[in-house]
Amino acid sequence: MGKVVGGMTLSLDGFVSDPHGDVSRLYPDLGELRNTEMLQEEIRTTGAVVMGRNSYYMGDPDSYLDDYEFQVPIFVLTHHVPEKKPKQTKTLTVTFVTEGVARAVAEAKAAAGDKNVILIGASTNQQCINAGLCDELHIGIMPVLLGDGLRLFEHIDAARLALEKIRVFESGARTDIWFRVVR
Amino acid sequence: MGKVVGGMTLSLDGFVSDPHGDVSRLYPDLGELRNTEMLQEEIRTTGAVVMGRNSYYMGDPDSYLDDYEFQVPIFVLTHHVPEKKPKQTKTLTVTFVTEGVARAVAEAKAAAGDKNVILIGASTNQQCINAGLCDELHIGIMPVLLGDGLRLFEHIDAARLALEKIRVFESGARTDIWFRVVR
Repeated sequence: MGKVVGGMTLSLDGFVSDPHGDVSRLYPDLGELRNTEMLQEEIRTTGAVVMGRNSYYMGDPDSYLDDYEFQVPIFVLTHHVPEKKPKQTKTLTVTFVTEGVARAVAEAKAAAGDKNVILIGASTNQQCINAGLCDELHIGIMPVLLGDGLRLFEHIDAARLALEKIRVFESGARTDIWFRVVR
Repeated sequence: MGKVVGGMTLSLDGFVSDPHGDVSRLYPDLGELRNTEMLQEEIRTTGAVVMGRNSYYMGDPDSYLDDYEFQVPIFVLTHHVPEKKPKQTKTLTVTFVTEGVARAVAEAKAAAGDKNVILIGASTNQQCINAGLCDELHIGIMPVLLGDGLRLFEHIDAARLALEKIRVFESGARTDIWFRVVR
């Protein structure tokens, strides 16, 4: 059984995007990032993705077919299933889940098999952490300060959560830390 | 000439103390921390300390003589010089500075000689960063979430600041990252 791995790339002051939703300072060189052993390993071990509606519509949904590093089933948490059906391939399928985060994670785990499920988006992460659905957190720290924006660690019942550092990995300006969620 | 090194130990969600000022979850084992090569190196390279009034009075000032890892001149930023003179030794002197952070740092640099000046306390760090007085940041990250409390990265003019990662060091649960302040 795979794990459910949450987490995101944060600025040193804790933001996953600036006040305008811009993430470019957190990912200054996507091409370089995609070539890191870290991301290649994550691609090999990921069997499904759960993401929120906002994350899904940040780009053109049809572009996932060519551009997205994770060519696996994607489960999109939403209140309304869009009328326009996105383009899909045999490996990258898109499923809209309206029954909440527990259902989305369950479906993603079933699709992922022995591989991991990763969580994309601040709200999806927060909901999964609070529901006890998250096994690990993978936090990337970039040496920038955004000053304001969207935080990953908000709306989380911090007192209920204990973390254990598993691993640290450096690639370029990034520092990536993996934590096990122990309760 | 030594460097001015700011930074503090943060929870993963960015707090230097909880809402009650408690820092115990960030320093679960002070004895173990003091034995790390990292802190031993910091002790060897530190020639003076600048700290805010709040940090200085967190403990009993007289206890610095025995307990404090940095047995060097301490410069305390304050608006009012206390009447009671703290106990001092030949190496650990205490100077109250009422003329602001630039003056405190200048005096500390003079006292430190070739060694570094370190900054203690969130407000002292913020003032020094904003005044362009900080050469490096040393950030310790602990695998805990405090949920609320005092933040290091607040009241900082983030857009004016660029950081460059210098070094990562692991000791126990901590991950320490050093950054050069490049503007």
